[in-house]
Amino acid sequence: MRVVLIIIDGVGDEYIPQLDGTPLEYASKKFTALNKMASEGMCGIMHPVAPGIPPSSDIGHLSIFGYDIEKEYPGRGYFEALGAGIKLAKGEIAFRTNLATVRQEGRHLIVTDRRAGRISGSQAEELYNILNEAIKEEGLPAEVKHTLEHRGVLILRGEDLIGAITDTDPHELGKPILKAEPWRGLPENLYNQAENAAKIINRITEISYRVLDKNNINVERRKSGLPPANVILIRGGGIAKRIRPFSEKWGFRPAFIAAGALYKGIARALGMNEIHVKGATGTPTTNLKGKVEGCLRALDAGYDFVYLHIKAADNLSHDKKPKEKAEFILRIDKALEPITSLEETLVVVTGDHSTSSIRGRHIGLPVPVVFWAPEIRRDRVRMFNENSTSMGALGGIRGKDIMPLILDITDRSTETGTLPLGPPLTI
Amino acid sequence: MRVVLIIIDGVGDEYIPQLDGTPLEYASKKFTALNKMASEGMCGIMHPVAPGIPPSSDIGHLSIFGYDIEKEYPGRGYFEALGAGIKLAKGEIAFRTNLATVRQEGRHLIVTDRRAGRISGSQAEELYNILNEAIKEEGLPAEVKHTLEHRGVLILRGEDLIGAITDTDPHELGKPILKAEPWRGLPENLYNQAENAAKIINRITEISYRVLDKNNINVERRKSGLPPANVILIRGGGIAKRIRPFSEKWGFRPAFIAAGALYKGIARALGMNEIHVKGATGTPTTNLKGKVEGCLRALDAGYDFVYLHIKAADNLSHDKKPKEKAEFILRIDKALEPITSLEETLVVVTGDHSTSSIRGRHIGLPVPVVFWAPEIRRDRVRMFNENSTSMGALGGIRGKDIMPLILDITDRSTETGTLPLGPPLTI
Repeated sequence: MRVVLIIIDGVGDEYIPQLDGTPLEYASKKFTALNKMASEGMCGIMHPVAPGIPPSSDIGHLSIFGYDIEKEYPGRGYFEALGAGIKLAKGEIAFRTNLATVRQEGRHLIVTDRRAGRISGSQAEELYNILNEAIKEEGLPAEVKHTLEHRGVLILRGEDLIGAITDTDPHELGKPILKAEPWRGLPENLYNQAENAAKIINRITEISYRVLDKNNINVERRKSGLPPANVILIRGGGIAKRIRPFSEKWGFRPAFIAAGALYKGIARALGMNEIHVKGATGTPTTNLKGKVEGCLRALDAGYDFVYLHIKAADNLSHDKKPKEKAEFILRIDKALEPITSLEETLVVVTGDHSTSSIRGRHIGLPVPVVFWAPEIRRDRVRMFNENSTSMGALGGIRGKDIMPLILDITDRSTETGTLPLGPPLTI
Repeated sequence: MRVVLIIIDGVGDEYIPQLDGTPLEYASKKFTALNKMASEGMCGIMHPVAPGIPPSSDIGHLSIFGYDIEKEYPGRGYFEALGAGIKLAKGEIAFRTNLATVRQEGRHLIVTDRRAGRISGSQAEELYNILNEAIKEEGLPAEVKHTLEHRGVLILRGEDLIGAITDTDPHELGKPILKAEPWRGLPENLYNQAENAAKIINRITEISYRVLDKNNINVERRKSGLPPANVILIRGGGIAKRIRPFSEKWGFRPAFIAAGALYKGIARALGMNEIHVKGATGTPTTNLKGKVEGCLRALDAGYDFVYLHIKAADNLSHDKKPKEKAEFILRIDKALEPITSLEETLVVVTGDHSTSSIRGRHIGLPVPVVFWAPEIRRDRVRMFNENSTSMGALGGIRGKDIMPLILDITDRSTETGTLPLGPPLTI
């Protein structure tokens, strides 16, 4: 049986008084496709990592794909780079960057918008180029590259550098930009390398404020009442690291459909094949219909595992727009309609984490999950939302339980559980 | 946001035919405060350690407080001693003791009441003093000290002793008192030290029966139809061990309200500040109203984490009194009424383990948990009891998940999950 895994980024949320429920609960009153799957399928509530732990999207995804974060996580920057088409060489470290807005207060830079008003790609590209020139002039072994909207990648090069440093991004508004520092508890030689990397990162942060704040683009943005993109936030150092391919680990022939650099990077790192979809942008105006068609196309082409990522529910929560999040999720439901006609296919729908539309950040509450397949154990859940699926037949599960359940439901598990079996006997 | 954590000791139970439910289910039909919190909050079912594992109260508590039992557990005796106001010196080992009732059968002492009919404090104190004299006369490096009701602490002193020995308490009625022995698998030097300790413990057990059985207090108790307190049961060897303070581990300024020595000891070991409440006894007649007032007082005083322990639900289950347990729990609900007027506060209500009113002992079934706070994700649970909350939005969680959830709900987690952040950057 083939598998479609649909991950709606940041799908879970908190109680929103004006919606009298979470955005998903509110939207689910008008669901057709997702409620059909919930009614005919088996549901549960999933903690992506563990209760109370808000994972970043990459950690949420890797947990769901069944990878061991402790052992196999290369750092976010690696995925961001791969997603932007940059293959890291040995000795290179990549970081995720945001163009952001800060206000100077004494010697601190207070973050007032972590995404500079989700600045347009063309303006952002120009600012990234300007920053790149300034970095070169200083002779720093680094390079920034624009990806999508405010997002970019920073590459550090050098044998005496490692990426085990803390983020400059405070992950919260009204807080100062943070000093990058080596992670605690590193052995001395690694500590020194991390310290070298941290110094460069902190220098680039200063440079970014110096060259961007007074740039013409930002002068114009201020005139138009838009937040200036006057600094760069740096986070998630990562290195190239071989991760066991998804096909080898789970025995599937996998394809993926995703727009965001991070998600492309994760899927590429796991060796999934990309299905290109025109108009897939990772924003609320993305081509949802095209993405679902891409999914069906991938199945027709013989892929037996298709990972479909839908991003903007998360963006709208970060922007504290619960109503718009609910509306976008309702559009996803409508776009998923063709999926419910699939035969001999297991469809799994879930999220990589919850994002609060009140607090504007990832939170550690669980997300709903539905497994929909012919003759699957049916429970009494009739709606796809946090509270309905929590009463489902699976109870509470973890992100790492998803792949074993997929193998089992599609008859790929063996009755011996985790006991190994040998190869065929040759006579 | 401030936090109130209310632990109702042994709150979960089994199905009691005459109540057509658990004592908590029965009581919950008349709940106001707890059902309000369940209706407006987020519920789940919590396995204090793991499904099927009945923890002792200290292990249940430490799991909920987020400590690693394997690495950080000093042994129960340490907490009992601290709770009784005894600070263990280096080389001292403490044990928890009970005055109990035995019947001699040949050369065995059969336990017929593990608490000697919950003997009064004044009688118990006298018997502990008599035992202490006898221990001194024999020249043993040990001392007993009465705490509450039948309970006490035994201190062993000596460089050649360790507390890694088995309990003399069979933890079951109708069974003989057990011989203390070194834990299996100890390395030889530790084995010898444990053997020395075990010998003293076994000797003290014999002495206790010899001096207590014929004592006047017990002669009188027998005449009045009361079980004699004619032996001492010894369990839970513990040593002084630094445990990372709660404030340092979780960033709260914590206070506690508890009557039992064990719970005081745990909270003191974690560096929580004590709020004294007159009439708090750890018995069914404890001053519940005063304890709740103490909790509000602590919040007013600026503590941002208040741990409130309520003991007697557990006692009544050990005594196989399910109806009285239900009545006591209903009194707790009424006493909690002022809590439901708190603003900007997360209130968590749960138990440290289930205790069976049929079997009279801790059992490995989960306990209900509710998280009540403004704008928390609301589920469809309307009653605070084992079966209702198991359908809540959290699904099944573990004791160790409680603190991460508390941090997350009160906005103390970071979006990076468990990755660290550095100090502000100075430009």
